[in-house]
Amino acid sequence: MKTVAVVGTGAIGTSVALALSRRGLTVHLEDVSATAVRTAEAMGAGSVGAPAERVDLAVVAVPPAHTGPVLGELQRRGVAHAYTDVAGVKTRPYDDLRQAGADPSSFIGGHPLAGTERLGPLAARADVFEDRPWILTPTARTEQSVLNRALELVSLCSAVPVIMDPLVHDRTVARTSHAPQLISTLMAATLVDATESDIRVAGQGLRNVTGPAGGDPGLWRDVFTANADALADVLDTYAAGLGRAVGALRALGHTDGTVRERAEAELDGLLRLGHRGRARVAGAASGAPGEVRLSVAVSGRPGTLARLFGAVGELGGRVEEVRLESVQGRPHGSVSLSVPQTSVADLSRLLRAGGWATDVVTLPDAPHRATRPAVPGEPVAVEVSADETG
Amino acid sequence: MKTVAVVGTGAIGTSVALALSRRGLTVHLEDVSATAVRTAEAMGAGSVGAPAERVDLAVVAVPPAHTGPVLGELQRRGVAHAYTDVAGVKTRPYDDLRQAGADPSSFIGGHPLAGTERLGPLAARADVFEDRPWILTPTARTEQSVLNRALELVSLCSAVPVIMDPLVHDRTVARTSHAPQLISTLMAATLVDATESDIRVAGQGLRNVTGPAGGDPGLWRDVFTANADALADVLDTYAAGLGRAVGALRALGHTDGTVRERAEAELDGLLRLGHRGRARVAGAASGAPGEVRLSVAVSGRPGTLARLFGAVGELGGRVEEVRLESVQGRPHGSVSLSVPQTSVADLSRLLRAGGWATDVVTLPDAPHRATRPAVPGEPVAVEVSADETG
Repeated sequence: MKTVAVVGTGAIGTSVALALSRRGLTVHLEDVSATAVRTAEAMGAGSVGAPAERVDLAVVAVPPAHTGPVLGELQRRGVAHAYTDVAGVKTRPYDDLRQAGADPSSFIGGHPLAGTERLGPLAARADVFEDRPWILTPTARTEQSVLNRALELVSLCSAVPVIMDPLVHDRTVARTSHAPQLISTLMAATLVDATESDIRVAGQGLRNVTGPAGGDPGLWRDVFTANADALADVLDTYAAGLGRAVGALRALGHTDGTVRERAEAELDGLLRLGHRGRARVAGAASGAPGEVRLSVAVSGRPGTLARLFGAVGELGGRVEEVRLESVQGRPHGSVSLSVPQTSVADLSRLLRAGGWATDVVTLPDAPHRATRPAVPGEPVAVEVSADETG
Repeated sequence: MKTVAVVGTGAIGTSVALALSRRGLTVHLEDVSATAVRTAEAMGAGSVGAPAERVDLAVVAVPPAHTGPVLGELQRRGVAHAYTDVAGVKTRPYDDLRQAGADPSSFIGGHPLAGTERLGPLAARADVFEDRPWILTPTARTEQSVLNRALELVSLCSAVPVIMDPLVHDRTVARTSHAPQLISTLMAATLVDATESDIRVAGQGLRNVTGPAGGDPGLWRDVFTANADALADVLDTYAAGLGRAVGALRALGHTDGTVRERAEAELDGLLRLGHRGRARVAGAASGAPGEVRLSVAVSGRPGTLARLFGAVGELGGRVEEVRLESVQGRPHGSVSLSVPQTSVADLSRLLRAGGWATDVVTLPDAPHRATRPAVPGEPVAVEVSADETG
């Protein structure tokens, strides 16, 4: 693949163009906005204008509602040998493309999962796709050569190809992307008339949950509209769960003890389920999968902090943080360690043998795993001499 | 204030004890778990055991359901002159305290808004309250001397006191803390039976929304139970909004154009409302309020990148990031700048005069503000000589 046309030089289109230009391909840029396309060109994404000859691949990076019609027009112009897009929904653009009288054999749907917080070419980065999934949705009509071109595109952008049926794609993103987005929007919408006092006591939980609502409303309206039924199905299930939760909360104050107990069990079950569900995505987000973080309490008795550090190193772990301070002339504090999952049992034995307290948790992004204090009644302080604490 | 008893040496109790010990106070530690209280002692939080004489203040840091009974018991033992707690709900513990036959005049409710991701004394940090709100909920029965003691506690922990009615507190946290927590749990619960493929394509939005669900289920069950009615009221409002959103999504495919248009307007309005609501908490979270981030496209024409940097510095801004790379021997890329909100107009004029493209957005945590490209048709490339790009 040597020549590519990128149609639509927003954040994603320009990022694709930057990545391909960097790899030495000739990239032609088009956009309805002269400013956007000139900006992309100034950034080194390619050169403005339609290609003089048929290019190897055309990448359409316009809003979902325009994707089908733009693909149809490009095919009529005979711009490329193969065509793909980057829209966040896949069945609607495909239906539109068929309606536009376009040829489905030279087209393959694409969806790079690279979130950009901002819009426009200036938000583009050549490395935004690196190691991220890039979904491809070939149909029975898609030619093998077209799939191969798309796989080459994904590879040139250093992304990881994931092959999926268009319909499965849309149901999946309804669940993992569009539903959380709408949930976030609904939560954020309740804050519009919040008092200054409400805002003042808002914590990290509220900031996390409402984060996605900061995305561009116009962009999400297009996405929701293009995937409305699949999204509504997911939300129906979610609403049923919400109804059960509210019912359980109301029943907690019921006069009948049996009703109360059932409500408590329901609330408890929901919280545990949510905790388990979170663990599934938290693990995927973790920077160091398979590692476990532990904390050890230390106090100022004569002894061997160095010995602990040595043992951790031998087990393939590392010291993450040491918090020590002098209280009445003696060091006190705690030490955080990271060790491979496979070494946890060995390290636990070592810490118990040394009379050290351990509080085993996974990395911060993952949920709390277990609190495993030293044997009750045992001294919990690690022996540490003052000169080792720096 | 010289002597304090901290009852309950979990993450929050031990953090309070650490902060007070660091300021030179004598701190007595109690906990039903011998391991927890010894660990806290080893960390330098104070000394294990009940005080021999009546202390100035007792801080009860046990789960909400136990707060009232523990306060009652401490009062019967005559442990302190004044009593406070750190529970995340305020009316239920107060009612429990009255039921336990305790004296409300020597008690003041407290709620430090310091989120700790982990449980137990090893998660404690002396600085966790610094510059964070610490809500105090005096009643008409609370003595002035008791309020003063609590204000001294907040000050010693370097937190910011916020005075609130107990009932208002519980309604506020239902809205800003408990509802987002339950929303997050419900979303995370839907992931329990997700396929590996679903998880693989999960993005940052899902991670943000489900983040709070990683919190300890037992802790949140206690909090929800103690504030069930206020939380259920907030969720009823939320559920009504969800129902309207689902209705609008279903109506997008209606045969009647008027119905479709109304649905589009409803969805659009909701997204804009959510965007505005998010801006209210995003602003509060921003590390540098009043600053705006801009990006400028640069390309390899002979000229003056240094001149741009000089102008930004004069306007009180700074260069955040420079992304330049050589494409066919000429530098291309973009520069990110932060400038005070008050200098945006001046900088925009300057960038327009120089023919530079600007894409004005607020800091990453805040929502997208505006995309303001240079005058259409104008050249968007800043003049920059290769030797300035390093």
